Amino acid sequence: MILLTHAHNDHVGDTVEIAKRTGAAVISTFELGEWISDQGVEGAIPANHGGTVAFTGGTVKFVPAWHTSSYNHNGQVVAPGVPAGLIVRVGGRTIYFAGDTCLFGDMRLIGDEGLDLAVLPIGDHFTMGPSDAVRAAEFLNVPAVVPCHYNTFPAIKQDPHAFGRLLEERTSARAIILEPGSGHDL
Amino acid sequence: MILLTHAHNDHVGDTVEIAKRTGAAVISTFELGEWISDQGVEGAIPANHGGTVAFTGGTVKFVPAWHTSSYNHNGQVVAPGVPAGLIVRVGGRTIYFAGDTCLFGDMRLIGDEGLDLAVLPIGDHFTMGPSDAVRAAEFLNVPAVVPCHYNTFPAIKQDPHAFGRLLEERTSARAIILEPGSGHDL
Amino acid sequence: MILLTHAHNDHVGDTVEIAKRTGAAVISTFELGEWISDQGVEGAIPANHGGTVAFTGGTVKFVPAWHTSSYNHNGQVVAPGVPAGLIVRVGGRTIYFAGDTCLFGDMRLIGDEGLDLAVLPIGDHFTMGPSDAVRAAEFLNVPAVVPCHYNTFPAIKQDPHAFGRLLEERTSARAIILEPGSGHDL
Repeated sequence: MILLTHAHNDHVGDTVEIAKRTGAAVISTFELGEWISDQGVEGAIPANHGGTVAFTGGTVKFVPAWHTSSYNHNGQVVAPGVPAGLIVRVGGRTIYFAGDTCLFGDMRLIGDEGLDLAVLPIGDHFTMGPSDAVRAAEFLNVPAVVPCHYNTFPAIKQDPHAFGRLLEERTSARAIILEPGSGHDL
Repeated sequence: MILLTHAHNDHVGDTVEIAKRTGAAVISTFELGEWISDQGVEGAIPANHGGTVAFTGGTVKFVPAWHTSSYNHNGQVVAPGVPAGLIVRVGGRTIYFAGDTCLFGDMRLIGDEGLDLAVLPIGDHFTMGPSDAVRAAEFLNVPAVVPCHYNTFPAIKQDPHAFGRLLEERTSARAIILEPGSGHDL
Repeated sequence: MILLTHAHNDHVGDTVEIAKRTGAAVISTFELGEWISDQGVEGAIPANHGGTVAFTGGTVKFVPAWHTSSYNHNGQVVAPGVPAGLIVRVGGRTIYFAGDTCLFGDMRLIGDEGLDLAVLPIGDHFTMGPSDAVRAAEFLNVPAVVPCHYNTFPAIKQDPHAFGRLLEERTSARAIILEPGSGHDL
């Protein structure tokens, strides 16, 4: 299953090629899903904010995110839309992928869904930075946070361990810092 | 008068043809209104969130909605934008058309406008489903709800009577379930 | 420095020409910044909601705004996105430019940033009108408000002095009404 929060090229990546090769379903917001379908992906499932979509073994619910969302395809802007966050329920766990977003008050409504883990951007510049991400963890009332969207290019350079210390000082959540290629058993 | 919440083809429908034939004004968000005007509709009135537009006998105010909004015109994406909800004041009544949206906390601000009726999507998948729509009715502090955006295609199959029972159990609002072609005297 | 809230033509104005002539940096949301860069502006800095960008002498943070955002370039819609508000910190002062927006509850989070001044639209039709702008000032907990986005075309005709009286009656903020070409020492 490939779950997409928004249409930016650094998030869509090789979705089309991987979905064609593997037959994975691709679940995304509406315009992005239509565009992925137009590229010949048979398992594209367009949905939108507030909707819950079932996949083998779990579900994903689309929630708000404050960012932009469009895809640059050979110099043409396609798939314009509004980005989303994702609440994924799988294996008895509930995980919130914030996608790219700033802090927003309705993270409290997302917290009402009963989260086990939140994956939050901390890179600043294109998303919230570390201190707003700590406040997000409070709004979400979540026991554990994986920071993401940092250190992949210079504008979003951050120290995830400094974020982790700030998170654990100010909230009851613990930080889980993952290295590329590593994992965590929830 | 034709009032549009967003640019998706299943909501715009035959707006251009009907407006040309009848001379009806078309009130919508900005990019959509510009596009409708470009199609030769003389009464297109583009507006945007927070704005109130007067029409013969009433007014409509544009409020937020969480969804996407673009129009597919002969395979080209046009009129990209941000969707809206509508607060319509007519005949001494105030009616909120949520458009396509998920639940959001600022429905409380919409409730502050003093609603007589809310028309809320319950279909899930592309919008909120029944249980979030019940919570929306609480946020809106509204005495009556008409469910909409369900059973028109398989992904949004719902039982509106089950929604109505849930609404009346959990809130003081009553459900008004309309059949296509039927009406209700408010 | 040129700071842009959204891609509408009446806000982008002569940005490209001025930036090329002066070498000013242009800080904006992502798609708009990419488009400005494509027009040959060397100092375009695309960012997005939640991000803070430093410039000579200050910083700007991107916050939410409810409106639409796209640019009409020779009849083609380009740079589709989501609009922003801006929190500008410069010379020891913190100023919130709401951009074009309706009232929203997360203006309380913007108020948490500690504002000295808010520049708020009052024109109605495309943005909030005077009474929602007064409520915005309450949410923002701001000591002074400059009204904007009015009287530049007929649909947004307003009396800024009537707004100022309403603001000062209902809140502890004072109104600062500027004439084109005039200034205010903060």
